Amino acid sequence: MRALIFDVFGTVVDWRSGVISAGEALAARLGAASVDGADGADGVDWAAFADAWRGRYLPSMDRVRRGEQPWTNLDDLHRASLAELLDEFGVTGLADADVTDLVMAWHRLDPWPDSVPGLTRLKARYTIAPLSNGNVSLLVDMAKRAGLPWDLVLSAELVQHFKPDPQTYRSAPELLGLRPDQVMMVAAHLDDLAAAADCGLRTAYVWRPLEWGPGGTAPEPTASPDHTVDSLTELADQLDA
Amino acid sequence: MRALIFDVFGTVVDWRSGVISAGEALAARLGAASVDGADGADGVDWAAFADAWRGRYLPSMDRVRRGEQPWTNLDDLHRASLAELLDEFGVTGLADADVTDLVMAWHRLDPWPDSVPGLTRLKARYTIAPLSNGNVSLLVDMAKRAGLPWDLVLSAELVQHFKPDPQTYRSAPELLGLRPDQVMMVAAHLDDLAAAADCGLRTAYVWRPLEWGPGGTAPEPTASPDHTVDSLTELADQLDA
Repeated sequence: MRALIFDVFGTVVDWRSGVISAGEALAARLGAASVDGADGADGVDWAAFADAWRGRYLPSMDRVRRGEQPWTNLDDLHRASLAELLDEFGVTGLADADVTDLVMAWHRLDPWPDSVPGLTRLKARYTIAPLSNGNVSLLVDMAKRAGLPWDLVLSAELVQHFKPDPQTYRSAPELLGLRPDQVMMVAAHLDDLAAAADCGLRTAYVWRPLEWGPGGTAPEPTASPDHTVDSLTELADQLDA
Repeated sequence: MRALIFDVFGTVVDWRSGVISAGEALAARLGAASVDGADGADGVDWAAFADAWRGRYLPSMDRVRRGEQPWTNLDDLHRASLAELLDEFGVTGLADADVTDLVMAWHRLDPWPDSVPGLTRLKARYTIAPLSNGNVSLLVDMAKRAGLPWDLVLSAELVQHFKPDPQTYRSAPELLGLRPDQVMMVAAHLDDLAAAADCGLRTAYVWRPLEWGPGGTAPEPTASPDHTVDSLTELADQLDA
C-alpha cells in the first residue's frame, strides 16, 4: 500500500454546514443592504436549501455520465442547479456576484476536526490525494484555505469522468505509477467504495453520521471495506502512520 | 497574478548532479559485488553520461510531439534512451533492477539550495505547481523526497502533450480557473518562457549557470521575461511573498 485517495465532500469536509453558513451570510448581507427584490433571502431555510442543492448533485453528474450533456465541471453544475433552486426557494434579485459567491462556497468548506491531523500523519507514510468529483480549482482553493496537506490533487476533471465511472478510479494508480491494490480509496459513502473496489483498489469507510446534519444518518458498512473508522486519525492509527 | 507554475529539471532541481551520483553509486555497487559482465560501469564518465542522457530528452519528446510515436511518458522515454546509452558507453550486463534504479534517479533529484525556501514563501501568497514534462509519479516522488511544497502537481502527462506544445501551458489556467495572465511560468530556459508567453502567461527567468555543471553556461535573457532572478528566494522578494 503506497497511496491513499480521498473522497472530499462529506468525507474530509463538512459541506452542509459550509453551505448553510454561506446562505445565512448572504441573507444577512442582503438584509443589511436592503437589496431590491432580495428580501426573500431572509426567510430561507438554508439547511433545507443546502440539502436540496446537494440533492441535485448526483442527477446533474449522471446527465454528464450518460452523455446527455458534454463534459461540465462541478462548479458549472453547481451554478446551473443553483439557478433552479433560487427560483424554487423564492430568492430573487441576486446580483451575479452574489450567485458566484454561493457557488464558491463549495471552495470554502471547513474540514472535519480530525481531517488535517489525520491527513498530516498519513502523508508522512503514504502519498495522499483527493479523488473527488470537485474540479481542480475547487480542490486547490479548499486545500489552501483549510490546510489540507495533499501531495497532489486528483479530480474527475482530469479525466472528464465523474465517479463512479471506472476511468476516474483507474486514473489514480495510473498517474501514480502503482498497481490498483497499492492504492486505497477512503470515503464516507459505500457506493464510492464499491466502485473503487471493482477497479481493484483497497477501501476504507469513514463513518460520518453528521454529514447530513444532526438528524441525519450514515449507513453502517454492509459492503466489506478493508478498514472502517470514525475519523482520519483513527485511519492513521490503523495504518501505523 | 494568482498562480506560479514551474519548470522542474534545471529550474527547481539539479538533474545533472543527481544523475551523476546515481551512476557513480551504481558503479560502486557493481564494483563491490563483482557482477559478471558489468565491469564496464567502473570506467564510465558519468558526467558525460548524464549530459548524453539529457541530450536525448528533446529529440525523444519531439518524436511524440510530431505524432511519430504514441503518447509515452517521460519515465518510458528515459528508459528507452537509457538502453541506447548503456550500449554506447559500454555498460553491459546490468540487471533489470539496476536499469530501473537509474531510470528512477530522475525521481530522486535534489533541489537547488534556494528552491524549498523560495517555494515555501511563494506558496503563502500564490498557488504553486510544477508544470513539467516529467510524469506525475516522478514529480510526486521528487516532491515528497525533497520537500517541495506544491499545492498541486501539473504535468505534460495530464494533457498528453509535452512542452512546448501550447496545450500544456493552457492546461494550467484552465484547471486553476484563472485567466492566462493570472499565471506565471517560472523557468531556467528561455524557449519554455517564450512558448508560455505565446499562450498569454506571465514569465520569470531563473538564471541557473550550474545546470550543465561547473563548465556550463546559461543564457542571459534575450526574450523579455517579466522577471529575471538568480534564485526562487529572489523571485519571492520581487513578488512580495
